[in-house]
Amino acid sequence: MYHINEISKLINGKIIGEDNLEFSKLSPFFEADPEDLTFAADESMLKNIAGTKAKAVIVPVMEEYPDGKAYIVLEQNPRNVLPILLNFFKPKMQKPEKQIEDSAKISENVLIGINSYIGHNVEIGENTVIHPNVTIMEGVKIGKNSIIYSNAVIREFCVLGENVILQPGAVIGADGFGFIKDKNGDNVKIEQIGNVILEDNVEIGANSCVDRGAIGSTVVKRGTKIDNLVHIAHNDIIGENCFIIAQTGISGSVEVGNNTVLAGQVGVAGHLKIGNNVVVAAKSGITNDIPDNSKMSGYPLRPHMEDLRVKMSMGKVPELIKRVKKLEKLLKNEEK
Amino acid sequence: MYHINEISKLINGKIIGEDNLEFSKLSPFFEADPEDLTFAADESMLKNIAGTKAKAVIVPVMEEYPDGKAYIVLEQNPRNVLPILLNFFKPKMQKPEKQIEDSAKISENVLIGINSYIGHNVEIGENTVIHPNVTIMEGVKIGKNSIIYSNAVIREFCVLGENVILQPGAVIGADGFGFIKDKNGDNVKIEQIGNVILEDNVEIGANSCVDRGAIGSTVVKRGTKIDNLVHIAHNDIIGENCFIIAQTGISGSVEVGNNTVLAGQVGVAGHLKIGNNVVVAAKSGITNDIPDNSKMSGYPLRPHMEDLRVKMSMGKVPELIKRVKKLEKLLKNEEK
Amino acid sequence: MYHINEISKLINGKIIGEDNLEFSKLSPFFEADPEDLTFAADESMLKNIAGTKAKAVIVPVMEEYPDGKAYIVLEQNPRNVLPILLNFFKPKMQKPEKQIEDSAKISENVLIGINSYIGHNVEIGENTVIHPNVTIMEGVKIGKNSIIYSNAVIREFCVLGENVILQPGAVIGADGFGFIKDKNGDNVKIEQIGNVILEDNVEIGANSCVDRGAIGSTVVKRGTKIDNLVHIAHNDIIGENCFIIAQTGISGSVEVGNNTVLAGQVGVAGHLKIGNNVVVAAKSGITNDIPDNSKMSGYPLRPHMEDLRVKMSMGKVPELIKRVKKLEKLLKNEEK
Repeated sequence: MYHINEISKLINGKIIGEDNLEFSKLSPFFEADPEDLTFAADESMLKNIAGTKAKAVIVPVMEEYPDGKAYIVLEQNPRNVLPILLNFFKPKMQKPEKQIEDSAKISENVLIGINSYIGHNVEIGENTVIHPNVTIMEGVKIGKNSIIYSNAVIREFCVLGENVILQPGAVIGADGFGFIKDKNGDNVKIEQIGNVILEDNVEIGANSCVDRGAIGSTVVKRGTKIDNLVHIAHNDIIGENCFIIAQTGISGSVEVGNNTVLAGQVGVAGHLKIGNNVVVAAKSGITNDIPDNSKMSGYPLRPHMEDLRVKMSMGKVPELIKRVKKLEKLLKNEEK
Repeated sequence: MYHINEISKLINGKIIGEDNLEFSKLSPFFEADPEDLTFAADESMLKNIAGTKAKAVIVPVMEEYPDGKAYIVLEQNPRNVLPILLNFFKPKMQKPEKQIEDSAKISENVLIGINSYIGHNVEIGENTVIHPNVTIMEGVKIGKNSIIYSNAVIREFCVLGENVILQPGAVIGADGFGFIKDKNGDNVKIEQIGNVILEDNVEIGANSCVDRGAIGSTVVKRGTKIDNLVHIAHNDIIGENCFIIAQTGISGSVEVGNNTVLAGQVGVAGHLKIGNNVVVAAKSGITNDIPDNSKMSGYPLRPHMEDLRVKMSMGKVPELIKRVKKLEKLLKNEEK
Repeated sequence: MYHINEISKLINGKIIGEDNLEFSKLSPFFEADPEDLTFAADESMLKNIAGTKAKAVIVPVMEEYPDGKAYIVLEQNPRNVLPILLNFFKPKMQKPEKQIEDSAKISENVLIGINSYIGHNVEIGENTVIHPNVTIMEGVKIGKNSIIYSNAVIREFCVLGENVILQPGAVIGADGFGFIKDKNGDNVKIEQIGNVILEDNVEIGANSCVDRGAIGSTVVKRGTKIDNLVHIAHNDIIGENCFIIAQTGISGSVEVGNNTVLAGQVGVAGHLKIGNNVVVAAKSGITNDIPDNSKMSGYPLRPHMEDLRVKMSMGKVPELIKRVKKLEKLLKNEEK
């Protein structure tokens, strides 16, 4: 547990309200539990302090401080102290001691493959199969009837449901890509202290990567199937029963609805909202939100039928240039 | 061995012809051996029953049933019962018992790396080097003089020829991406019971993935070299002496000829036929068959020189729009 | 050490100058040390023999042989004998004998994960953490305070600085993609005898691959951060404090300046020079050099604002074709 005084001091803040609070974790604004600390970094949060359940909020100087919360007030945007906060709240890990750590809880009829490492406090549900050379780090939970193929890695504190399948080499919970430039222009790492949640019946393809949340979780919801070599960045929320086809990459903090299909080699920019029942054709680039039930393609992305027309018409441009030149010449002659 | 009665009952079929047959495996229509069971799901098969060597064929109701085969007749398209069939025919695997299973046949002068797992009934040819932390699962065969680098995974029943090289992290034989929607809209896995065949002198790059066939084999033919992070989907047949450059993705059931080059980040849609001696430039999207000796690029794909002209002309479109507007204005004035 | 006579004989050369020399290694022309052998294969080298520090140079027949070097003269381009030379100079590796080889030098307070392999003569600096199931091959050097996550592979003779992080499944030092066609049209491997150097504070994402140099090194300079599933090919030199975002692929022998950002799914053709402080937007294709401070996007690549205009204008082409057709009709009528 971390005391509010300690944290306020760490980030040069001033406490307003109750100053004898303790927190077990730092959470994202809209996902925080009542015992958590959170931070409000932009308008959507600052104008809606009641929108978080957290009992304390790190904020910049505000005109007034709504009742019912404690505040750590900063002379700057809380985003600037995030690297310090994440480093402070980063869970401490225990050292590996033996191949299957004593504190691991392995249910009945679980198969642990040769040379697979099962970390401290890991929990594995019944009938789950762990193939050889898998690495499952501290605090991971895996439901029953799951299959983890060889050389998959599940990093600390990730949670997998029932009937989850990880194909070989899948990486769950690598650090999200979070860095800032310091005043010298050097890249400085922002610790990634969240985790990954894979719900029931999720399958992750060979050598695909689902990064852990910066804070909070990256989530893949029930029934979603992810193909090989796919990249899911920190804090993405992928809906239920989606298909994410091979080599697609989704930037951070994207929300994808249910029953949506992203075909192969699609790219998605950060912080977008893609609806339910959306189909996006292969190699498309998504840079805007997509409403439910859309069928889209291309880069820039367009309704699929329109994109086909545009793609076809592109082939006529060299000839079109000649035709326009001819028209210009004709008109010039007429004008004489 | 599975009896025809058992299978017919499983999928609610009616047997026509010889009803005392047994099969060891289910095979694709055009690749089946004479002792196999197969299924005919579309016109190209149904009108050409003689095109399969299988002694029994699962079919929908037909007008007549050509002689010389047994039939399991369904009231629906056999494709619908494929998930049931694949689950039924899925080979049962033995549990891992020790790092190098007793039944593995390791030839002379083979080097088995520290902590590498060698599964039941694996066969490894002489002078082959297995580096540390490799996983080779049940029934895999590897020819002589091959090199398997660390953290590569070869899943069950795949076959590698001589002088094959797997760079680190390559995954051979992960499940193909096969799912159907059930009546609730939930994604349901179709078991992938085929394998992968890598012929002699094939090299697979770091973290590249070659998925196993749904039924039948995914094949990479002799001398073909595959770069890093490439995705080869289920039932692809890649010809001899091809180069498949980094981050290219090939969808399922694609056939690529010999001596063909797919440059980096190319995408190939499913069920296509790409000829011999084809060159496709980087980042292209292939959505149609390509004849032999073509040099192609772009998305949509065009002959390379034409694509260059189209790409160049695109830069002139903003100006072209202005020029057309001007012409329209001129003509309007004249008309007055 | 290899004697000049032995090498000259191997490649059918004729020695001019000092013929009693020995070399420990073959190096690229501009990076050779004074005790090295090198080769000059194109004009930029042949006209600038003083540009290499190597004491001996393999050359084709020249008009004159500048003083101060020894020469092995060939009746053909030295590039043709490169496969023979690389095979000859390929370092011989020792066999793995135990999980942590006796010759490895592990500093104080280093954590070696369960089942990780530490090769012959590996050196690991203090406080570095090696997670379970990592493979570190012969002669690798890792600086202090680094973190190597599970299932990462570092192949022989690669060098990692301080504070380096490898996310799970990262592959450092796989063979570059180097092949030639023999006279039968078969693909023949060119051995890749260089290494990879990752300088201080470099981070490599999950399942990303940095290939070793063919000869000489692939280098990622200090502070550069590479995201997941990125491909860095042989002999690339990536500058300081760059961001290389997920699924980007960089072909061989590319030079990238400092503080440059390549966004997701970018592709870079071989042998290019990308400047300092460059930003290239996602999904772009780079086929030409880029000067410092450029902001670029698209494929073909254009200045970013121009590319946006072009991309927007493409959507108007179908309508533009109609408008031109109308104009043509109008003019035709007028001409009557």
